[in-house]
Amino acid sequence: MAVPFILIVALIAGGISIAMALYFRYLVLKEDPGNEKMIEVAGYIEEGAKTYIKVQYKVLGLFVTALFLIILFLLPSVINPGTLNWEQAVAYLIGALGSMLAGWLGMYVGVKANTRAAQGCTVNTKKGFDIAFFGGSVMGLAVVGVALIGVSVIYGIFQTPLVVLGFSFGASSIALFMKCGGGIYTKTADVGADLVGKAEYDLPEDDPRNPATIADNVGDNVGDIAGMGSDLFDSYVASIVAAMMLAASFGIAGIIESPIGDVTLTAGGTAILVITPIILCGVGLISSLIGIYFIKLKGSEEPGKALNTGTYFATLIYFGLSALFTFFLSISDPTVTQAEIGLLWRIWGTSAIGLIAGIILGFTSDYFTRDDKKPTRNIANAAKEGHAVVILSGFSYGLISVVPPALGIVIAMAIAFWLGGFFGVAMAAVGMLAIVGTIVSNDAYGPIVDNARAIAEQGALGDEVIRTADRLDSAGNTAKAITKGFAIGAANLTVLALLFSFVEEARTKGASIASVDLLNVNVLIGAFIGVVVPALFSALLILAVQRNAAKMVDEIRRQFEENPKILTGEEAADFSRTIDIATKGSLRELILPSLISILIPIAIGVLFGVAALAAFLGGAILSGFVFAVFMSNSGGAWDNAKKWIEDGNLGGKGTDIHKASITGDTVGDPFKDTAGPSINTLLVVMSLTASIFIGFLLLFGGGAGLLILGIP
Amino acid sequence: MAVPFILIVALIAGGISIAMALYFRYLVLKEDPGNEKMIEVAGYIEEGAKTYIKVQYKVLGLFVTALFLIILFLLPSVINPGTLNWEQAVAYLIGALGSMLAGWLGMYVGVKANTRAAQGCTVNTKKGFDIAFFGGSVMGLAVVGVALIGVSVIYGIFQTPLVVLGFSFGASSIALFMKCGGGIYTKTADVGADLVGKAEYDLPEDDPRNPATIADNVGDNVGDIAGMGSDLFDSYVASIVAAMMLAASFGIAGIIESPIGDVTLTAGGTAILVITPIILCGVGLISSLIGIYFIKLKGSEEPGKALNTGTYFATLIYFGLSALFTFFLSISDPTVTQAEIGLLWRIWGTSAIGLIAGIILGFTSDYFTRDDKKPTRNIANAAKEGHAVVILSGFSYGLISVVPPALGIVIAMAIAFWLGGFFGVAMAAVGMLAIVGTIVSNDAYGPIVDNARAIAEQGALGDEVIRTADRLDSAGNTAKAITKGFAIGAANLTVLALLFSFVEEARTKGASIASVDLLNVNVLIGAFIGVVVPALFSALLILAVQRNAAKMVDEIRRQFEENPKILTGEEAADFSRTIDIATKGSLRELILPSLISILIPIAIGVLFGVAALAAFLGGAILSGFVFAVFMSNSGGAWDNAKKWIEDGNLGGKGTDIHKASITGDTVGDPFKDTAGPSINTLLVVMSLTASIFIGFLLLFGGGAGLLILGIP
Repeated sequence: MAVPFILIVALIAGGISIAMALYFRYLVLKEDPGNEKMIEVAGYIEEGAKTYIKVQYKVLGLFVTALFLIILFLLPSVINPGTLNWEQAVAYLIGALGSMLAGWLGMYVGVKANTRAAQGCTVNTKKGFDIAFFGGSVMGLAVVGVALIGVSVIYGIFQTPLVVLGFSFGASSIALFMKCGGGIYTKTADVGADLVGKAEYDLPEDDPRNPATIADNVGDNVGDIAGMGSDLFDSYVASIVAAMMLAASFGIAGIIESPIGDVTLTAGGTAILVITPIILCGVGLISSLIGIYFIKLKGSEEPGKALNTGTYFATLIYFGLSALFTFFLSISDPTVTQAEIGLLWRIWGTSAIGLIAGIILGFTSDYFTRDDKKPTRNIANAAKEGHAVVILSGFSYGLISVVPPALGIVIAMAIAFWLGGFFGVAMAAVGMLAIVGTIVSNDAYGPIVDNARAIAEQGALGDEVIRTADRLDSAGNTAKAITKGFAIGAANLTVLALLFSFVEEARTKGASIASVDLLNVNVLIGAFIGVVVPALFSALLILAVQRNAAKMVDEIRRQFEENPKILTGEEAADFSRTIDIATKGSLRELILPSLISILIPIAIGVLFGVAALAAFLGGAILSGFVFAVFMSNSGGAWDNAKKWIEDGNLGGKGTDIHKASITGDTVGDPFKDTAGPSINTLLVVMSLTASIFIGFLLLFGGGAGLLILGIP
Repeated sequence: MAVPFILIVALIAGGISIAMALYFRYLVLKEDPGNEKMIEVAGYIEEGAKTYIKVQYKVLGLFVTALFLIILFLLPSVINPGTLNWEQAVAYLIGALGSMLAGWLGMYVGVKANTRAAQGCTVNTKKGFDIAFFGGSVMGLAVVGVALIGVSVIYGIFQTPLVVLGFSFGASSIALFMKCGGGIYTKTADVGADLVGKAEYDLPEDDPRNPATIADNVGDNVGDIAGMGSDLFDSYVASIVAAMMLAASFGIAGIIESPIGDVTLTAGGTAILVITPIILCGVGLISSLIGIYFIKLKGSEEPGKALNTGTYFATLIYFGLSALFTFFLSISDPTVTQAEIGLLWRIWGTSAIGLIAGIILGFTSDYFTRDDKKPTRNIANAAKEGHAVVILSGFSYGLISVVPPALGIVIAMAIAFWLGGFFGVAMAAVGMLAIVGTIVSNDAYGPIVDNARAIAEQGALGDEVIRTADRLDSAGNTAKAITKGFAIGAANLTVLALLFSFVEEARTKGASIASVDLLNVNVLIGAFIGVVVPALFSALLILAVQRNAAKMVDEIRRQFEENPKILTGEEAADFSRTIDIATKGSLRELILPSLISILIPIAIGVLFGVAALAAFLGGAILSGFVFAVFMSNSGGAWDNAKKWIEDGNLGGKGTDIHKASITGDTVGDPFKDTAGPSINTLLVVMSLTASIFIGFLLLFGGGAGLLILGIP
């Protein structure tokens, strides 16, 4: 399979993206960082974030090295000696380093942009918005640029998706640490700060006397910028790899089956299909860049509307540009048959459907978390009946909110499958993630304005500026809700595609998986354990936050008790201690969840076989979807219900109703920012682990496992 | 297939059971009902319970008639005209009436036993215990007796499990209403009473001034006695039917496959295998009767220990007796082959494993909810950090508590399958439920002593007596925790068996289900929707409780405001209004959940085909297990954490820690008593609906469904 020249498009798009990221970085850095106090606070935040990243990357170094050696010496060549070992191991390393680089770059600019955005708010809303948005875009563009260059260069050199799989696994193992670790960090600080500061000492949000306030702001950066960035990096690369691997497998089989009609594949057609995901992602990136250009705040426009406008533009441009490039692909090789050209257009359709589905998913999660819609209003009203009822209400609406996106995914999957078989489903995931550059940019905007608001408070910029920052912050929260719905949907389709590609891959390597039949007891056991794992994983993360937050609470109380001058504002609180607790705790607490995500799939494969492992992944994907959506939306709705009450509704701040709504928000914090979004990464890591370890698993009963119960 | 004479054993056991139930009823009724005030309160409770049952049974009458007519005119003969229509319809009717009868009998004695048990406590602990336990046993024995007589008579007359399936469906449709309706009723009253009475007016539990206190006590009877009884009736019959249908299907195929070795079936052997579930249940019932005989409180023994002793005895006796009857079965027909005799012994083994697994499951849920074990202690300690943290902690431990029973089920299923294939799994469910007579008796004891405590309070029997009643009540709570774990495990294995029998049944009727393959997109869609349904169902029930409790709260406040003499105790509260709200609300609110459980499986079968429906059931079973265990155990642990604090730990009553623990308890109430346990019934109803409607579903694409996406 020769690699077509058109791949250069993706490389160019990636290059432009990195260049624009650096340009935006320049735009942000040249802005005024504000007064001395603001610079001091921003300095603390930057220091804290860097400390976390340093400690985190040190641990990651060990972990990555270990997996690098395992791949180099054991996988995938256990059964096919000499095949792809060093290539996959090196790709793994590049993927890990790429993800670390993108995360670092995004966060580095994020912690610089916050104080500048706060200062920008003293000029006008537009200035503040632009700085925050440019800051966020650095993350979005860096993520996509690094990913796309990595994928296209590695595929260009090694010409097999199996090496790109190593790259993807590298990105995912970083994402697991960054997402879970960041999630634990941010909520340790947030919950700790709220429990003592707000509840016991009645300090306002972001009060500089609160020793955990800096850790809280650092948390926004490490959890919501670096964490979310690495999560989407991970899904983005995984969706491309899953589609490439499926195309290659079907190319070997010589046929792509789909209900609308099977297509016989030629060598030329296969080569084009394999790079189609990369090309369409390149097109998506160009669309994102244009979309980002369109995100401009005009006059009195709502900041949230500006962000959405960018997303719509990127989507529309994607439809047109991707059609154009589908046409280029279809004429790029004269040996491609008419049937294959028809298939290419169907694939274009699946990518468009995926993207539409992604946007719809984003907006359903927006619906379930907006304070002007029924669910959040009902949750807020439930606070009138006390703490327990607000919890019950938010819990229930969160569960109900699973239904619309589940139907959305099912319908998108059905149409995509109808058009292009399993490859079509994989390409729907690629389509959904095509404009991820815009999505990540919008998302990373959120924590920057959140931090900007805190710095404006601490830098004593006055009520007017804080109100401006609040307005920007509220748009950030909406963007975050949409991004989360989007990210969960995209990850879900991606892991389904990975599941299909895992099975095709196992078949190609000689495992006899005729089916993943729930009537086979081995398979049923796999599915059973799979359904339980996301629940266990969520619980472990939440308990981790709780344990760590308890330490934080003790430390805050200790500081207030030992030095009463902190509360009077005469002396500064000791921020380094709280940052230290959040940093060390988050790393210690993510060991068990990480091990689960790698060891359980391997154990299932060894004991119950490859088909059971596929069912395990299937079960985990479906139940993971339920838990991820439920937790994210419950959490978001509780948060917004509380904010709506704080805006003066139902009696406003300080009432018992408000207190009950704070309970909802505090429960929702680890739901929406730790456990919920980490499930995506869990699923991707488990799926990739399965694919990477296939060769190893085939050693046990030829992939049937050691405990063969099912009657074949 | 001639019906062997040995079936008479089950009939005799059923008869003895009913006779003993009536005898226990006599024993209870002849006891002293206590002072005038107690008789008055008990009268209110009885009145309320009867009103509920009357209204409930009226609605049920319509529902049952409609389904009776559907079965009579449409099913199962749509494709095989003239087959079994009236037989299945009549069996359906008998099943429904039987379940209603058992529920009515149990509740009737329950509401008589409460005041007598309270009065018994004035004599000594043993007297109170005996009355409550005899009262509870009426329910246990009536449930099992009616079920066993129904199953054996219907099978004896019609000689095909398909007619017994009608009986089972009848029992299940009643169970759905009784369990969901009772669950909503009991928590409407409980949450309503707590939110206003305890939280706003600082009234103690069961204070007669609280207008919802009678409704609360009625709720214990309709939810925890009638509801739990019909739930276990439902699982019990369903497990027998699933095993019978599998045996009959394998009989037609002429072989039972299992990893340990396939067995060719003769006509005689099949006839024996088909009745084995009934015989072993008869044996289990005899064991239960002996076990109940052993439940005697000696001197200063803990009441909880006495209940457990009965369970252990019943289990041991079952092992011996069932071996004896397996021997009788093996010699009852000289045409039975050696291989079939070997299979019978393996099947005996699976039933024993099922029973052991059930007991282990019961004790794991006990572990996760006992106040002297780590999870509940940690949850109680989390209350120190406030409302939100106690919720997060209980939520997490609830999710973690899913892991041990999931492993228990998986291991039991694996061993049972190894020994006897799918039939072995079904027989493990039968074994697990064999001693259900003891289990239901222990469980129904709980609400009786709970009511007795309330009546002792309201009848002013003094602190000493209330302490005695409290001791009995605490044993009841432990029994309830164990029963719930047991019930969920049993229902889970039962619905798995129903899933297998559904597929075998569909195959027998001509559907081409080669597999339930997750790689088939239709099947994957089915599984996806299946996983979501228990989440949706739980949320709807919880919201129903919340809505209804809000009405209850308004009514209680209204009464206190309009008539201040209620609070001073000068005038009685208007109990009929609160009972009316709970009754009507619970019926209105269960319409949507009931429709879901019948219409969604049919819709999946029509649209996506029978294999997708099987996957739907599989997905629902697995995710339903997670939600059922999590909700039951979270709720139980919160409840006990609160009680532990109320016992004087962490500062005891009235502190902020106590208030936080009450929030946990209130959230846990609908978790553990409404949503969690209703999921069992949901799963059984959905599985039976699938089986009953097979003929109808085969009309659509021959069982492939209208929307065929999967590539076969």
